Amino acid sequence: MSFDILQEKISRLRSPICVGLDPTDALIPQELLDAAISRHGFSEKALSAAYLQFCKAIIASTADIVPAVKIQSAYFERLGPAGVSAMKAIGDEAKAAGMYVICDAKRGDIGPTSAAYAEALLGSVKLGGVTTAPYSFDSATVNPYLGTDCLKPFLEVAVREDKTIFVLVKTSNPSSGELQDLELSGGELVYEKMGRLIEDFAAETAGAAGFTRAGAVIGATYPEVLAKMRRQMPKTFFLVPGVGAQGATASDVAAAFRGAGSGTASGAIINSSRGIIGAWKTAPGGDWKDAVRAAARELTEQLRAAVFI
Amino acid sequence: MSFDILQEKISRLRSPICVGLDPTDALIPQELLDAAISRHGFSEKALSAAYLQFCKAIIASTADIVPAVKIQSAYFERLGPAGVSAMKAIGDEAKAAGMYVICDAKRGDIGPTSAAYAEALLGSVKLGGVTTAPYSFDSATVNPYLGTDCLKPFLEVAVREDKTIFVLVKTSNPSSGELQDLELSGGELVYEKMGRLIEDFAAETAGAAGFTRAGAVIGATYPEVLAKMRRQMPKTFFLVPGVGAQGATASDVAAAFRGAGSGTASGAIINSSRGIIGAWKTAPGGDWKDAVRAAARELTEQLRAAVFI
Repeated sequence: MSFDILQEKISRLRSPICVGLDPTDALIPQELLDAAISRHGFSEKALSAAYLQFCKAIIASTADIVPAVKIQSAYFERLGPAGVSAMKAIGDEAKAAGMYVICDAKRGDIGPTSAAYAEALLGSVKLGGVTTAPYSFDSATVNPYLGTDCLKPFLEVAVREDKTIFVLVKTSNPSSGELQDLELSGGELVYEKMGRLIEDFAAETAGAAGFTRAGAVIGATYPEVLAKMRRQMPKTFFLVPGVGAQGATASDVAAAFRGAGSGTASGAIINSSRGIIGAWKTAPGGDWKDAVRAAARELTEQLRAAVFI
Repeated sequence: MSFDILQEKISRLRSPICVGLDPTDALIPQELLDAAISRHGFSEKALSAAYLQFCKAIIASTADIVPAVKIQSAYFERLGPAGVSAMKAIGDEAKAAGMYVICDAKRGDIGPTSAAYAEALLGSVKLGGVTTAPYSFDSATVNPYLGTDCLKPFLEVAVREDKTIFVLVKTSNPSSGELQDLELSGGELVYEKMGRLIEDFAAETAGAAGFTRAGAVIGATYPEVLAKMRRQMPKTFFLVPGVGAQGATASDVAAAFRGAGSGTASGAIINSSRGIIGAWKTAPGGDWKDAVRAAARELTEQLRAAVFI
C-alpha cells in the first residue's frame, strides 16, 4: 500500500497517529506475563507469547481509531527466533485489523544484502518451487549511511510489491546531531543533504497525492527542523517519532504536515510508543486496555486541534 | 573475547582472514538443497536447513586454518524465524570450533532500542527468573548514523560481556561516498570525522595489545583510505570487506595493518565471502568442500605474502 492509502486511512479517521509497539517486560501487565510463564516457564517463548498477547490487545483496542502501528524489531529480536515469530504474527494481526504496518528495523547494507533485507521485510522470497513471504509489513525504516546502493533495492521492492519505506534523515535522539547536523563545505547540513538526496532519488515513484514511496524519518524533538524539511521535501511523507516519552508535544509536530490548519492536512504520521502502550501504568485501576485506548484518543484529539483545526 | 584474543588467533594461524557466511540459494551445492527439500518440502525451513548444513561444512573445512567467520544476518532474516534459528546454530557451531564469530547486522537505533539490539546480539536477556542468551556472537557490526547514543549501549554490553563491535566508517560499496565522502566545512571528510569519533569514544576500553573494543569497518575497495585511516586510528581494529568478488586484492589491503611487512603485522581482519564460499562453483569436479578450503588457503597465502612477508 502506497502513502496514498496511508493518507486515506489518516484522513478517514482524522487521526495522524502511529502506535509504537515497543514492548518491554516493564510495560506488560503482570496478568499477561503470569499467564505466559505458567504456560511456557521462564523462557524466551514465554516472553514472546506475552508480547504477542499484549500487542494483539493493543491492536484490538485501537484499530478503529488509529490508522497505523510501528513495530520496533529490536524488542522482538532480543527474544531470539521465538520473538521474531511473535513479530510476524503481530504484523499479520495489525494488517488484518486494517492498519498500516511499519516495521522499524533501520536496516541498510551494500546492494545485494540490502535486497535480501528488502525481500525479507517487504517482499517475497522465491524458494525452488514456491514463493513465501516471511513478513507482511507495508513499510520499513532504512538507514542511509551506505548511500543509494543501499536504498535502491528497498525502493525497487517497494514499487514491485506496492509498499513504502521511511529513510532516516534527522532522528529524535539527543546525539543525532553528531553526524546529522554537521555542516558541509557548501554550507548545507548533512541531514539537509540526505533529505534532498531522498526527495530526488524517489521522485519518479510519486502517487496520486504527490508522495513518493520513500518517506523520511524526522524527529519531533527538533520542531524547527520539521518545518524546514517540510518546505525542502514537498513530495516526501514524514514519519515523526519523539512525541510523549521523548518530550515533544502535538503542537511541536504541526509543522510536519502539508497544509497544517487547513482541515485537510497531509503528509505525516506521528509515532507515540510508551505514551500510548504504557499509559495504563500511570492510570489508576480499571482495565489496562481502556487506558491505552484513552491515551490514543487523547493524542488524536491533541493532534486534531494542532494540525487539522 | 576482546580484539587481543582475535589477534592471538590471527597470529597463531598466520591468517588474517574472516570467512563471510553470506549464503544464497545459488551458492549452495544442489545435493544439500535436494536433501533439505526432500525432508521439509519447498519451504523456509528447507532453505534454512540447507544454509545450516552448508555453513557447518564450511566451518568444519576452514576452522583449523582461518580464525574468524562473519555471518551476514540479512540472508538468514530473509528466511523468517526458521532462518534466524539457523543463524543462531551457525554462530554456536563456529564458536565451538574455536572461531571468532562476527554477526554482520549493521544495527543502530536510539539509546534504549540500541541496548535491546546489543543485548540480543552480544549479551544476555533477563527474563523473570532466568537469564538467556539469544545468540552467542563475539562481535557485531553497528551503523553510526544516530551518533554515540546508538553506539554507547553496544560498547557497554561489549565491555560487560567481554565482546567487541565494528562500527561502519567507510564501506566497500560504490555509493558509499554519497554520504561518507562529503567534505565538512572544516575540510575533514565525513568518514574521517566518524573515524575520529570512534577512536576517541572507545579509548578507555583499550586492551593489552592497544586495541579498543570498538573496531571500524573500512572497505578494501578504497586502498588509499585504508592507509590514511590506519594512521588516523592507531587504536582501532579494522574489519575490511571487499576482497575477491567486490574487486580488491591482497596487496590492496596491506595498508590496513599495523606493522605490515614486519612479520608481526596486526590490527585488521580481511573478509572474503563469495570468493571463498562460492569457490567450488568455478572449480571443476571434486568435493565442493575441498574447493572452499583451497580458496581460504590461497587467500591466506596471498595475505601472508602481502602483509606478514
